[in-house]
Amino acid sequence: MENLVMNYEDRWLLPDGIEEILPESADQIESLRRQLLDAFRLWGYELVIPPMIEYTDSLLIGLGQDIDLLTFRVTDQLSGRMMGIRADITPQIARMDAHSFSQEGVSRLCYTGHVLHTKPKTPLATRSPLQAGVELFGGAGVESDIEVITLLLESLQQLDLPKLHLDLGHVAIYRTLAEEAEFTKEQEQEFFQLLQRKSATDIDRWVNEHVKKPQHKKWLLKLPELAGGPEIIDTAREFFKGAPAAIFDALDQLSKIAQTIGQRCNFVNMYFDLGEVRGYHYHTGVVFAAFASGFGEAIARGGRYDSIGKVFGRARAAIGFTVDITSVSQLTLSQSGQENLIWAPYSEDQNLWSAVRRLRDEGRSVIAALDKDDDIPVKCKQQLVFVDGEYQVLPL
Amino acid sequence: MENLVMNYEDRWLLPDGIEEILPESADQIESLRRQLLDAFRLWGYELVIPPMIEYTDSLLIGLGQDIDLLTFRVTDQLSGRMMGIRADITPQIARMDAHSFSQEGVSRLCYTGHVLHTKPKTPLATRSPLQAGVELFGGAGVESDIEVITLLLESLQQLDLPKLHLDLGHVAIYRTLAEEAEFTKEQEQEFFQLLQRKSATDIDRWVNEHVKKPQHKKWLLKLPELAGGPEIIDTAREFFKGAPAAIFDALDQLSKIAQTIGQRCNFVNMYFDLGEVRGYHYHTGVVFAAFASGFGEAIARGGRYDSIGKVFGRARAAIGFTVDITSVSQLTLSQSGQENLIWAPYSEDQNLWSAVRRLRDEGRSVIAALDKDDDIPVKCKQQLVFVDGEYQVLPL
Repeated sequence: MENLVMNYEDRWLLPDGIEEILPESADQIESLRRQLLDAFRLWGYELVIPPMIEYTDSLLIGLGQDIDLLTFRVTDQLSGRMMGIRADITPQIARMDAHSFSQEGVSRLCYTGHVLHTKPKTPLATRSPLQAGVELFGGAGVESDIEVITLLLESLQQLDLPKLHLDLGHVAIYRTLAEEAEFTKEQEQEFFQLLQRKSATDIDRWVNEHVKKPQHKKWLLKLPELAGGPEIIDTAREFFKGAPAAIFDALDQLSKIAQTIGQRCNFVNMYFDLGEVRGYHYHTGVVFAAFASGFGEAIARGGRYDSIGKVFGRARAAIGFTVDITSVSQLTLSQSGQENLIWAPYSEDQNLWSAVRRLRDEGRSVIAALDKDDDIPVKCKQQLVFVDGEYQVLPL
Repeated sequence: MENLVMNYEDRWLLPDGIEEILPESADQIESLRRQLLDAFRLWGYELVIPPMIEYTDSLLIGLGQDIDLLTFRVTDQLSGRMMGIRADITPQIARMDAHSFSQEGVSRLCYTGHVLHTKPKTPLATRSPLQAGVELFGGAGVESDIEVITLLLESLQQLDLPKLHLDLGHVAIYRTLAEEAEFTKEQEQEFFQLLQRKSATDIDRWVNEHVKKPQHKKWLLKLPELAGGPEIIDTAREFFKGAPAAIFDALDQLSKIAQTIGQRCNFVNMYFDLGEVRGYHYHTGVVFAAFASGFGEAIARGGRYDSIGKVFGRARAAIGFTVDITSVSQLTLSQSGQENLIWAPYSEDQNLWSAVRRLRDEGRSVIAALDKDDDIPVKCKQQLVFVDGEYQVLPL
């Protein structure tokens, strides 16, 4: 036990993957958070604030084992029930749509907040990312997909990020092929794992071992290769001739998205990956991820997950995305508002106090000395000086 | 066990004291959060973002059993150590000042975020209040007390709250009297409990039983009654004649605060309570609380706690406050920004899309129809209509 108790000198140690954020980054994160929320609200998305903690029965609603394992659990001392610290905000918004918004028709909701993960999702990831996102409920058509993707891209564009890339996929393509090849649940899961790893030799071996019909073999083997620019959609249409209609519905949706996003958001590179299966366990339609040049992980992810509200008694069409503000903040230049700090020397003069108050009313930041011997902080580049009968701001 | 598993219909239930916040309140809370942070930054307080979770060794640093019992604990799967979900942000800021800000001189830090409590602090309180606050490190004089209290009052004033009241006390008064009467640790604790309950008969009985010297009896019995406007300070000066100098130092500080705050913040009622001992376990000087007419609980609390950074190897003078945004939001009128929502009907016309984009660039919120049959949301009071060759915003 002894080595589990910290020395005085170690008390500032934070757990791995848990960060404290110092002023320069904190200002930037606060600014990103506000810009994103304001963008969402300009599109009519209403802000909601879901709680940090809920009963696990509400929080873990079959979004897959991944999210279950990422969730910290504690016992509610009031009810004896198990609660979870949210590891994902999406199921909370679905619950709110199902229960707290009785209106028919479309609901547009947005949110921001920290989530907590028991383990980092990737080796260098934070265990407490700050997220912001939107969910659109009640819109089943491709127009909803387009609205949400456009909103994502326009929101990111205003943040002055490096070149943006959008990856697009559609889970109905693999789902339909798996049904068509009559995969068992285990087989569907096995091939899903291989697709995620995109390991060509393993896929080859597995398909030759488990799939009988040559047509199915051909489709499944080609799936990981169907990736590229918008032209890949036509290639796929040609290639999947004779496949079930669901695949062509999916391709039509992607095609419509490619066309409209291409017009509206010509600042983005679109990349289609028809073998993309991330979020397959709960997504039901288009899936997408946004990347910025020079950063390996996605800065935002989203997709359609039409059945998510079912466990709360209201299965509605649903599509949304989540932006990882923590990642985005590593990509943007700092815009610290503290550069124009003004120093007010110590004085008992009421007029100095009035001058300080006036500056703050104008939105200018002023640090007031606490006594005569106070050192001027390095970050103050200006000071209040009494010249010509009044207090003026002069360079330091 | 069976009754611990939720039915479908119950999955939306939230634990007692845990709330989800719907759009109207959420907009208001977001607005309060921004107004408070912006006010703090205008005074040169730098924003930091401490983590939601830390090792309990860092989080629970002797701020009293209350905070220990309020803290949810989980095991860190990466290190095997015990972690706590923060129930209070102040010790986190003290750790950051001690470790992450090496500068000498004064540090001014501010923060905002949710905390989680295992049990509600008061019967109707939320278990997940949203807080915002400041801490000033390295300023030991009364000028720091005055700066922090003025900042609190001016920040609250801009929020359009009902009449503000400020309660002020000083823990050195009781601490000195307890030392003078040579209380044992147990006695000090016992009388502290009685003072908190302000129960006159119990105090009377206890003092007569445990205190020998008539002078000490007189001081201790009078302590709960020394409460009222600024004039109570002079009454106390008179009454405590012959008491240790530490009491007069405390009274001098309160007097200076009364004078300056009276000048600067004449919109507030000041109330002095020299028997106030809340936060006694970690406070070391002036303590204060802000109230608004019509709301029984304090909306902000603060005080001086000079030794808090010691466990992190840097004992510095420290004073700060925390505003409970959740409580404040129950006192302010909603200022929803969603009243001027504009409806854009469905159309494939590129010009409509350009008109929508232009409105959003101007900061006006627009909901765009997803298809021809979309219902106009009730909250839209205006719409985009094609008139005289252009898209115009007209009343609905």
